[in-house]
Amino acid sequence: MERTLIKDLKNYVGTEVLINGVVNVARHQGKMAFFDFRDRSSLIQGVVFGKPEVLEIAKDIGAEYSVAVKGIINQRPEKMINVNVLNGDIELEITSIEVLNASAPMPFDLDGELSLETVLDNRPLTLKMQRAQDIFKVSATIVQAYRDALIKRDFVEFQSPSLVGSDAEGGAEVFKVEYFNGRTANLATSPQLYKEIMTGAFERVFTIAKIFRAEKSATTRHLAEITQMDFEMGFIKDHNDVMNELEAVTREVVNSVVAKHSEVFSRFNTTAPALPEGPYPRLTLLETQTILKEEYGIDAIGELDMEPEHERKICEWAKAKHNSDFVFITEFPTDKRAFYSLEIPEKPELCRSFDLLFRGLEINSGAQRYHEYDSMVAKMKRRNLDPDKFGFYLMHHKYGVAPHGGCSTGLERFTSRMLELPNVKEAVPFPRDINRIDTLLSQLDE
Amino acid sequence: MERTLIKDLKNYVGTEVLINGVVNVARHQGKMAFFDFRDRSSLIQGVVFGKPEVLEIAKDIGAEYSVAVKGIINQRPEKMINVNVLNGDIELEITSIEVLNASAPMPFDLDGELSLETVLDNRPLTLKMQRAQDIFKVSATIVQAYRDALIKRDFVEFQSPSLVGSDAEGGAEVFKVEYFNGRTANLATSPQLYKEIMTGAFERVFTIAKIFRAEKSATTRHLAEITQMDFEMGFIKDHNDVMNELEAVTREVVNSVVAKHSEVFSRFNTTAPALPEGPYPRLTLLETQTILKEEYGIDAIGELDMEPEHERKICEWAKAKHNSDFVFITEFPTDKRAFYSLEIPEKPELCRSFDLLFRGLEINSGAQRYHEYDSMVAKMKRRNLDPDKFGFYLMHHKYGVAPHGGCSTGLERFTSRMLELPNVKEAVPFPRDINRIDTLLSQLDE
Repeated sequence: MERTLIKDLKNYVGTEVLINGVVNVARHQGKMAFFDFRDRSSLIQGVVFGKPEVLEIAKDIGAEYSVAVKGIINQRPEKMINVNVLNGDIELEITSIEVLNASAPMPFDLDGELSLETVLDNRPLTLKMQRAQDIFKVSATIVQAYRDALIKRDFVEFQSPSLVGSDAEGGAEVFKVEYFNGRTANLATSPQLYKEIMTGAFERVFTIAKIFRAEKSATTRHLAEITQMDFEMGFIKDHNDVMNELEAVTREVVNSVVAKHSEVFSRFNTTAPALPEGPYPRLTLLETQTILKEEYGIDAIGELDMEPEHERKICEWAKAKHNSDFVFITEFPTDKRAFYSLEIPEKPELCRSFDLLFRGLEINSGAQRYHEYDSMVAKMKRRNLDPDKFGFYLMHHKYGVAPHGGCSTGLERFTSRMLELPNVKEAVPFPRDINRIDTLLSQLDE
Repeated sequence: MERTLIKDLKNYVGTEVLINGVVNVARHQGKMAFFDFRDRSSLIQGVVFGKPEVLEIAKDIGAEYSVAVKGIINQRPEKMINVNVLNGDIELEITSIEVLNASAPMPFDLDGELSLETVLDNRPLTLKMQRAQDIFKVSATIVQAYRDALIKRDFVEFQSPSLVGSDAEGGAEVFKVEYFNGRTANLATSPQLYKEIMTGAFERVFTIAKIFRAEKSATTRHLAEITQMDFEMGFIKDHNDVMNELEAVTREVVNSVVAKHSEVFSRFNTTAPALPEGPYPRLTLLETQTILKEEYGIDAIGELDMEPEHERKICEWAKAKHNSDFVFITEFPTDKRAFYSLEIPEKPELCRSFDLLFRGLEINSGAQRYHEYDSMVAKMKRRNLDPDKFGFYLMHHKYGVAPHGGCSTGLERFTSRMLELPNVKEAVPFPRDINRIDTLLSQLDE
């Protein structure tokens, strides 16, 4: 008999079917046994009654067993119908069960509230929880919707390298790799230089790239290994062109998540993100600081960057004033941004840069970049960077790259704010940080 | 004036338009200047005639300059129509040119035949060549079509980690990373253990993951950093279920490449891959070796794996006999495959494994895996692996994972055989190998 997916069982009332699934819940009551089975598509309740030979097998079956079950699909009696659950109007009258794989008893209640540490220590098990199922299905939708939105706009995907040569940029703390023949390579901290090079040839490109940060940070917003969703585009007037594309892309991502997972938000005590009818608010850093002072009494005018608390407050303001869960902050100080960020000609102390904040957190950073060779070399020298070490990168300036810009969205941060998770680590199936690679590193000492 | 994409210019005959593009070819002839411009969408010829002030700017413009050009779209006279090129029936009568970025003169002819070393040494420039444009657009289509095919089949995408803990498996040569606090991490050689764990929770998963191989190989088929397209699925009967999905997915990938890039194959002196009407041929290793002996006089019977020459010959055979550019080889010796490959019960010296060959090269490897906890632990011990080091991985066996299997396709190998490239490195924009990270490592010594 061919397997039927559980979501399709409602079409088979009165018929014998075969399902493959996992035991969600098992309740043994003397001469009866009740099960909830799940497969990738849905849930169904099954019952064993009046079949001693089936009960003999069923009585040893507990949660998380993988099973192949045959049975008849019956309409439930009127008073037993549960309209609040999937397949609440049918049940499976089990005629045979085959155990495909047994499970050890659960070490803790999977329905309970678990600490993040317990969740991560037991990831292979806790990935089965509804909460993890929701998070990673939403994350998968975000990354695919992001790609679809860009492909539709003529962006070409490429694979940016993780292994890079000398840490030419300096600054960011990088992981070192023992490469061939005694040489040292580094793990990429950004696909930036590669996506600019690709833009010179393809005009519009994007990459879903791993980046690696060796900062010794253990906050709720830091990871050692991050999935960045980057795009870069040529023939722009300034950074506003990049923001226009990013706004369109993030709207499509949100709409896609809402369309596919509308039921998920209430399970995380949140709602679908608010998208304003007009454009996302765009504030310069100075305008932002002025609002923070006038509306919240926070005096940060003249500071070179925003504190986490400032990000939260200006998002509060954008939600209240513009009904927007997104807000752009622009015109950051040149000295605080990477060397390839282009200055504003009239006020070179500021650059054509922006951050996109989403529900209290910066999830994206972008800018217009240098395109002229001579200006780029001069800027490198002002930053005490050696242009000779950037010969490969500078080739795209040398051969006429168009004015271009782009930006970078952290998948984990986007996912984490979409569902208002307290810690970004929860948005990664296998997070790496200063303390953990799968298991706590300290356990290796035991 | 808004920019018009070059592909749309045919709709603007008689109208003034603005294009943004790059100079493909510049020809200066006294009082006239001819240009071919390209943007991401297409090509157009432009001409400056009878406008001294425009000619004054145009005369300094050479190949690879980025420009903004205004002009009138004219129908070409009958005898000037070139039906063999895009927009061969129209031309742009240039009324103004603005240089957005200048380019240095080309160091070599971009239309010429270049050695792979020259191509890679000058990647930011050579990515602009038609050949590189074709390769990386095809590669982008392959990876997106692969994902689309899997998502349609209920597979959930996840991001597999690049940083992993101890090299528990041993064997494969791994790159070592200086992690936090004096600890050593490794770069992943496969997403295998993680995709199995995910399968326990999501039933069907896939990942596009970077893997890293520190083998000191410098062949035409080796890279140090590889993009693997992996999927894994639960509730299988055996490896044939995985092969069925893989066959369906690769057919959709080929069809997508053919639909989007039909014109590309002739530029690489090849044709669209042959897909048989019936299923891809499936041969056991022994059947393969028998054919090699009977049809090609190659005596390899009893050998534990296939040589590159054997892969090429059996693909020749599959093409001739079954009109298939794909062929599955199954039932490899257990001792030659990874510890998690499940043995065939009736003949445990062989395992439920397969390779998929495409046009002479193995592009995919797969198998059914262990699902029972006790059997997995026993197998680890037979392989002299320490189960205590696999505690995290073994959790998914312990908690009832269904019988499952999966496979892994190399994006670069798939791309390289799709276009019959002589070296897999050409299918990577920024290849890493024993000699190169962007520039040749030996140049760092100079």
